Amino acid sequence: MISFENDYVAGAHPQVLKRLMETNLESLSGYGSDPYSESAKAKIRKACQCPDAEIEFLAGGTQTNLVVISSVLRDWEGVIAAKTGHINVHEAGAIEYTGHKVLALPHKEGKIEPEALKNYLESFYADETYPHMVFPGMVYISHPTEYGTLYSLKELTQLSEICRSYHIPLYMDGARLGYGLMSNGTDVTLPDVARLCDIFYIGGTKVGALCGEALVFTSGNMPQNFITSIKKRGALLAKGRLCGVQFDALFSDDLYFEIGRHAISTSEELKNIFHRKGIPFYLESPTNQQFVILTGSQMEVLKRQVRFSFWEKLDNEHTVVRFATSWSTTEDDLEYLEKILSFESARS
Amino acid sequence: MISFENDYVAGAHPQVLKRLMETNLESLSGYGSDPYSESAKAKIRKACQCPDAEIEFLAGGTQTNLVVISSVLRDWEGVIAAKTGHINVHEAGAIEYTGHKVLALPHKEGKIEPEALKNYLESFYADETYPHMVFPGMVYISHPTEYGTLYSLKELTQLSEICRSYHIPLYMDGARLGYGLMSNGTDVTLPDVARLCDIFYIGGTKVGALCGEALVFTSGNMPQNFITSIKKRGALLAKGRLCGVQFDALFSDDLYFEIGRHAISTSEELKNIFHRKGIPFYLESPTNQQFVILTGSQMEVLKRQVRFSFWEKLDNEHTVVRFATSWSTTEDDLEYLEKILSFESARS
Amino acid sequence: MISFENDYVAGAHPQVLKRLMETNLESLSGYGSDPYSESAKAKIRKACQCPDAEIEFLAGGTQTNLVVISSVLRDWEGVIAAKTGHINVHEAGAIEYTGHKVLALPHKEGKIEPEALKNYLESFYADETYPHMVFPGMVYISHPTEYGTLYSLKELTQLSEICRSYHIPLYMDGARLGYGLMSNGTDVTLPDVARLCDIFYIGGTKVGALCGEALVFTSGNMPQNFITSIKKRGALLAKGRLCGVQFDALFSDDLYFEIGRHAISTSEELKNIFHRKGIPFYLESPTNQQFVILTGSQMEVLKRQVRFSFWEKLDNEHTVVRFATSWSTTEDDLEYLEKILSFESARS
Amino acid sequence: MISFENDYVAGAHPQVLKRLMETNLESLSGYGSDPYSESAKAKIRKACQCPDAEIEFLAGGTQTNLVVISSVLRDWEGVIAAKTGHINVHEAGAIEYTGHKVLALPHKEGKIEPEALKNYLESFYADETYPHMVFPGMVYISHPTEYGTLYSLKELTQLSEICRSYHIPLYMDGARLGYGLMSNGTDVTLPDVARLCDIFYIGGTKVGALCGEALVFTSGNMPQNFITSIKKRGALLAKGRLCGVQFDALFSDDLYFEIGRHAISTSEELKNIFHRKGIPFYLESPTNQQFVILTGSQMEVLKRQVRFSFWEKLDNEHTVVRFATSWSTTEDDLEYLEKILSFESARS
Repeated sequence: MISFENDYVAGAHPQVLKRLMETNLESLSGYGSDPYSESAKAKIRKACQCPDAEIEFLAGGTQTNLVVISSVLRDWEGVIAAKTGHINVHEAGAIEYTGHKVLALPHKEGKIEPEALKNYLESFYADETYPHMVFPGMVYISHPTEYGTLYSLKELTQLSEICRSYHIPLYMDGARLGYGLMSNGTDVTLPDVARLCDIFYIGGTKVGALCGEALVFTSGNMPQNFITSIKKRGALLAKGRLCGVQFDALFSDDLYFEIGRHAISTSEELKNIFHRKGIPFYLESPTNQQFVILTGSQMEVLKRQVRFSFWEKLDNEHTVVRFATSWSTTEDDLEYLEKILSFESARS
Repeated sequence: MISFENDYVAGAHPQVLKRLMETNLESLSGYGSDPYSESAKAKIRKACQCPDAEIEFLAGGTQTNLVVISSVLRDWEGVIAAKTGHINVHEAGAIEYTGHKVLALPHKEGKIEPEALKNYLESFYADETYPHMVFPGMVYISHPTEYGTLYSLKELTQLSEICRSYHIPLYMDGARLGYGLMSNGTDVTLPDVARLCDIFYIGGTKVGALCGEALVFTSGNMPQNFITSIKKRGALLAKGRLCGVQFDALFSDDLYFEIGRHAISTSEELKNIFHRKGIPFYLESPTNQQFVILTGSQMEVLKRQVRFSFWEKLDNEHTVVRFATSWSTTEDDLEYLEKILSFESARS
Repeated sequence: MISFENDYVAGAHPQVLKRLMETNLESLSGYGSDPYSESAKAKIRKACQCPDAEIEFLAGGTQTNLVVISSVLRDWEGVIAAKTGHINVHEAGAIEYTGHKVLALPHKEGKIEPEALKNYLESFYADETYPHMVFPGMVYISHPTEYGTLYSLKELTQLSEICRSYHIPLYMDGARLGYGLMSNGTDVTLPDVARLCDIFYIGGTKVGALCGEALVFTSGNMPQNFITSIKKRGALLAKGRLCGVQFDALFSDDLYFEIGRHAISTSEELKNIFHRKGIPFYLESPTNQQFVILTGSQMEVLKRQVRFSFWEKLDNEHTVVRFATSWSTTEDDLEYLEKILSFESARS
Repeated sequence: MISFENDYVAGAHPQVLKRLMETNLESLSGYGSDPYSESAKAKIRKACQCPDAEIEFLAGGTQTNLVVISSVLRDWEGVIAAKTGHINVHEAGAIEYTGHKVLALPHKEGKIEPEALKNYLESFYADETYPHMVFPGMVYISHPTEYGTLYSLKELTQLSEICRSYHIPLYMDGARLGYGLMSNGTDVTLPDVARLCDIFYIGGTKVGALCGEALVFTSGNMPQNFITSIKKRGALLAKGRLCGVQFDALFSDDLYFEIGRHAISTSEELKNIFHRKGIPFYLESPTNQQFVILTGSQMEVLKRQVRFSFWEKLDNEHTVVRFATSWSTTEDDLEYLEKILSFESARS
């Protein structure tokens, strides 16, 4: 059965796996002190145009979020996020488990609006009872968001300016950053991200790695003894090479961006197919996740032949579902999907 | 300067303090095992018409909330509360500090609507991704709410039924319960609270004690080794008598309810004064907290002669402020306030 | 029945209670911003000869320990304590509940030996794997210790020097500080404590208050937004006056020290009684707690007429028990005890 | 440079990596619901002779320890471990970060003695103050221990009986279980482990996998909603196949045990080399880790040609170091080491 269920249905991009094979028998130091991890960091610094960036590799996205948020926040602080942010919805309370509140803001298609952020911060300090409240200590954004949408360079610049005026870090969850950066029409580059965010991570798990995220501190702001804080959260891989080698491969020969381009071009084709078949979109997504609205009977038929994700009930008759592309999506997958949808149209 | 700042501006009700004096030199066991604590528990059980209730005394409201919520919730659960609930706003993230998320629902004048609760619970289990989310494991309500409003017996019954159908406890924060129970027109009695809630606390700090809240488990549901869990949170008083003697006094000779009645009747007079002076109300509160809207110049003048609380900015010209009555509010206080407001009207 | 069970069997010292009475009806601001709290802080600063000390009042000892330790330690740090330290044994894991390890050192009669501390710190940094271990981030001592013993000025000076050379704070749990300071033969004064410790608390609960401990930061080292951190742990009393008024009384007219002197002199009489009766001591304690060894039959007889505390089983035949004096111990109590012991000797 | 630094210096065993290659392009469900994870679980159940075992895969050892300990312990409980246990020393306080104390017992070459455990439990409940203390809620043992030593079947049986008589689970950290099971002379089999422990994990990271541990609950005792608890700790891999495929390979064709046998036989050769060269042993280890004592000058010379681990300073002149073998240790490595040691002997 073909799958558009998510962007992590396959293993690693073949070039990534090839490097794991080639380096497998080398005796290397543990915990990220191996030469491949060093090399990967150097390549990421270069790609970010951020020569002083400090980088650590972690195994997964929720883990990265909880490690960074709990290590950076001070005791009296929480993290601002869109109500729909991954940390507020789909991480099983991982941030709260570290003792910090997620301060949820209204969202617009998954994004925090700069104006809303500014108002929140102003209102907080205008409220005389604020010492009894959780201080805003960081702003979390995802880019692309959980709805596949992207911040414009202007929006990102505004968020960054607001954060800096309040001396709180802007943190970007880049689980799907590769897809966001290669989206048609985006005006945000990786160096922009590194310049405007104080902390961000470059997602590997959803962009061609078996596992792994590259966490980047852009301005000498990596917490002291950070390795110990990672260990304390059970997040320090003994074989740090596993991430190091993979990211070294992803940032060689433009591979990370190549993966992004492929997923975006297949996603554009996917959009065309849905348009041609008259399947309505829930929102306009410029990245590798497409949200469409299906009727109950459409869902029933489709489910038997292709995997996709439930998103939310729209009403009694309709459901929002997600189709995702990735480096592993093929022309065959798309052709097959179009065929199924034709058949399905015929039947319905 | 007279004060309507809150309902804990004075010390203890004189009858409470008198009992502390009378018992002061007795040698008593610590940690709540003294006879006054036992006697207070028996009187509370009787007042609740709940002979099997298990009761412990704690020093303050935020402390009680964090102890009970973190002891009762299971690892994968969070607590549902109105967005305006005390635990969601004014406890500095105390619940999250114990590792649990507050799941915020929209509110209506501080209350959770039964329909909204039901929808939330249904939607949660209808979402296929729910194992990645925080399970709803308890419902927190405050009664009176942070806005001085009250649940009707019908609403409370509905909330209770919904909770029981999902096998999650209904927990009532009764920081100001005494004022709620004595409100004109309420149809909710203390036995109703004990029958419909699984856990609740009877507030002392804001209802005549120096400190102290009586936490009640209504149906054999006090967590195992609860004393140890209290100690673990730094909440076990060595001189447990301090709360025991006070609650023994509060539940003797109808004192707790008498305090409530006095605050409600002075609050009704307060409302009349504001009505007479043409000060608009922010909402209709049947309890001891009144929320009125002042202009900037009104605030300036008033502030010099009477203490009250800032609540929130309404717009550039107007501010919502809170006036609270308590057992210690006197006729003189009210007369003085009316005089100031006259003067202030004359000037403005 | 007379009681030597502990030093918190009675309520408050009468002068303390008197001040609570006298100030009861005053309208005061909450959360420790009242004038009595301010006055108490000024008096404590003076008694400590530490004009810049920052002080907050908390309700109990375990609470104070967990608030200060978790607010001051950094993410990667734990707190060093004697194996017998209160935080390591009798606080139900309250420190660990805040996410920090207690690093237990061997003890000598409840005390950490400076040499042992120095070795621990040296060994820690000599171990190449230390980034995988909990960093020592604070030293906790109790004075008097859980065994009633005291640090000498020389020992305290050495501990202080070691801590400062490693840039970690020395924190003293002074639950019974008043008894330690008034002990015959001690060469440690309150200004010494304030000069050599970075943080300490002056115990009230066990030295004449209904509840309350005065937490002192000696050198501008109170954590930022500390009130919020206190609130987050459920430890902020709404009626802060409760502690403020009591400590204002304790530090007026030398009362705190007077209470200490009384308990020490009655404890010395207690020692004489045990000596005269041939009851062996478990160790030599210069403070208000005396640890003696009883046979099983002695325990049985005594238990019926006087309250004391089980400490530990020594062997099958003998048990270590504790007798404590306090401000409320009377000459009558001592005479009665001597009589019981005579009778008991006669019988055995 | 050759390396005996630890048992995770190389990547994955070639057969493990081969299976990752072969399955790489298959579209599989995430979070451990793929068929390879299912197949691996079935094979492990069979190898354990425990048909009802519930199994989940996690990425690393510290992570597995913290997930299982914090999910299984109840609020008032801590975990008993040898003072030298990995969770007590080398996990940066990960257990305490989840809010639970590690209750450290004296050890004998890394092992908990059944008698010591029994005494501890008896003393705990004999102490009248136990409600103020952390309850023992689990026993953690490592097998092999951090010193490479092993429990005998008799010892394991005794520990199991004691735990069951107190109704607390026995949990085995099997980071190096494969080496323990294949040790010459051990009388403990994998079915014994499954029968006597309530929970254990089969280490992959140190026994041939890139990462991954198989956590086994032996008697229907996996915590409810365990996937959510794993997610809450950031430990749920999106590509669960990464562990599933690897463990499926490790438990095919006896590979896991083959890896163990190889490491044990090379370790025996290693011991012979040290014996022949007159290098003294720190203790007798029957597994893949050998602890020997080097002089300062020996260390200096050796360090330049072979990697090994610092263990601890023995005295000013001598250091305990560790040499570890694994599946990747070759005859060439051993020959080379012997040559170096000869040279080194010649020089010294």
